[in-house]
Amino acid sequence: MSTSTPVAIPVKLKAFLQSSGQQVEQTLKAALADHSTADTLFAAMNYAALGPGKRLRPALVYAAAQALGGAAAANQSHQAAAALECVHAYSLVHDDLPAMDDDDLRRGRPTCHIQFNEATAILAGDALQCQAFELLAAAPLPAELRIRLVTELAQASGARGMVAGQAIDLAAVDQALTLEQLKQMHRLKTGALICASARMGALIGGADAGQLDAITRYAEAIGLAFQVQDDILDVTADTETLGKTQGADAARNKPTYVSLLGLDGARAKADELYREASDALVQLGGNTAILQQLADYIVHRDH
Amino acid sequence: MSTSTPVAIPVKLKAFLQSSGQQVEQTLKAALADHSTADTLFAAMNYAALGPGKRLRPALVYAAAQALGGAAAANQSHQAAAALECVHAYSLVHDDLPAMDDDDLRRGRPTCHIQFNEATAILAGDALQCQAFELLAAAPLPAELRIRLVTELAQASGARGMVAGQAIDLAAVDQALTLEQLKQMHRLKTGALICASARMGALIGGADAGQLDAITRYAEAIGLAFQVQDDILDVTADTETLGKTQGADAARNKPTYVSLLGLDGARAKADELYREASDALVQLGGNTAILQQLADYIVHRDH
Repeated sequence: MSTSTPVAIPVKLKAFLQSSGQQVEQTLKAALADHSTADTLFAAMNYAALGPGKRLRPALVYAAAQALGGAAAANQSHQAAAALECVHAYSLVHDDLPAMDDDDLRRGRPTCHIQFNEATAILAGDALQCQAFELLAAAPLPAELRIRLVTELAQASGARGMVAGQAIDLAAVDQALTLEQLKQMHRLKTGALICASARMGALIGGADAGQLDAITRYAEAIGLAFQVQDDILDVTADTETLGKTQGADAARNKPTYVSLLGLDGARAKADELYREASDALVQLGGNTAILQQLADYIVHRDH
Repeated sequence: MSTSTPVAIPVKLKAFLQSSGQQVEQTLKAALADHSTADTLFAAMNYAALGPGKRLRPALVYAAAQALGGAAAANQSHQAAAALECVHAYSLVHDDLPAMDDDDLRRGRPTCHIQFNEATAILAGDALQCQAFELLAAAPLPAELRIRLVTELAQASGARGMVAGQAIDLAAVDQALTLEQLKQMHRLKTGALICASARMGALIGGADAGQLDAITRYAEAIGLAFQVQDDILDVTADTETLGKTQGADAARNKPTYVSLLGLDGARAKADELYREASDALVQLGGNTAILQQLADYIVHRDH
């Protein structure tokens, strides 16, 4: 039984998400098409990267690029958008492994190691991470900018970013985390990559230092809001709507925003973060309509 | 009981290997020093990347850079050398996992997932791969060249390179591979990264197209020779000298050069590849003494 109110996605955002989703899937399909040497490996990579998903990180890349650099910048963002989705997909494949979160269900489908096997899932994740950097290196952008993007992605997804967050998360099972520690964990585990998505798009769009600062504050707020909403949905949405096992975090005794703040407190937190994101967009300038609607969507989504 | 004859490493090569090994360890230590956020993760990364090892790939980077670009090029190769060692180390950590080769012993020490745990080993491998690209992006080289190095490393280590080789290797357990299929598997699994090491060093050293072609032929020959010698040592060396379980491949019923060619046939193959490597060095030109000695060392090493 769901207690959340389904939210209608604004027409403009819906069209944008459809278009950016199609773009990134096209780029990923092309990048993952050649499977002459290792059929099963490529099948698993395609399964992981091209299954159903929100394509939120690619949408952020495109939206930030377009906000500052218009259609031209968005058209130069395909590789970066696909790279972000590759890293996101690889992290889910590895997170789901028996030695990690041990999940059988992801986005309503068997997880990669259930659909294939554990060894294939490990290798598919490894190869997807590698594919991300190969894509970035091939972007139609000046070499200096491509290097900047490689650095952004590597810093956000490595041992001082996403992977550190996952390590802290694993260590936190059955631990009493403080709100500050929980925030730090999420800032790294999901926030860093969401932040990198927006920053990389902004860099392609030609952001100056002030704009990069503004898009970072925007992305940090929605990154955290995304996680707060995830925790809310984990207790309010049903498994079918969610596409993963409802109550999974609670069952593992993981600390969540809901367990620390209560349901109402968590909702208030999400609203506060939404306002922070909106304030940052005022500072950003440019054409921020889609970024604004994305923030709204993240805070009020029902799955 | 060892049946192999210990080989004395030439003084010049010994000094070179010591110096390049120290250089890469210094670079890796600096890159893996900051562990404020995730102590165990960084401990596992250090354990995997800085344990005992031949540091063959870094040595190839330095040797190829020095052969074509002298000391100046070698001094610009630290990040590339460390990046190669990161990818090599991550691949060993993941290969050793229970779902993969399930090895408890590596380089005479417990494997990463035995020393820490499986989840930490998966994450340490993921983060080491990421660290490799971060290192390359930070090399003191023109951006165009750094992008070229990122592309070389990504192509060599991803789904059309090293990871594909590992996938084929896993699928080959209990399968009757032909010699051609075995060669293809090793060309990808170990050859691609060895080849990338030499090519990346040569690129830093300013290789032209002809020189890049020559160093590629050299590296392909020694890469394959390395594997042939590995197979020979798997049946002739004792576990202590080898630092991993002797006879492990045979026990898993994996096809090897020895099982396909016999011990004498495998030794003849290694010698043939050594001659191919030497011929390529004549074409390369430059100061190839160390590259020549490296080829000799690879074919005649006893562990």
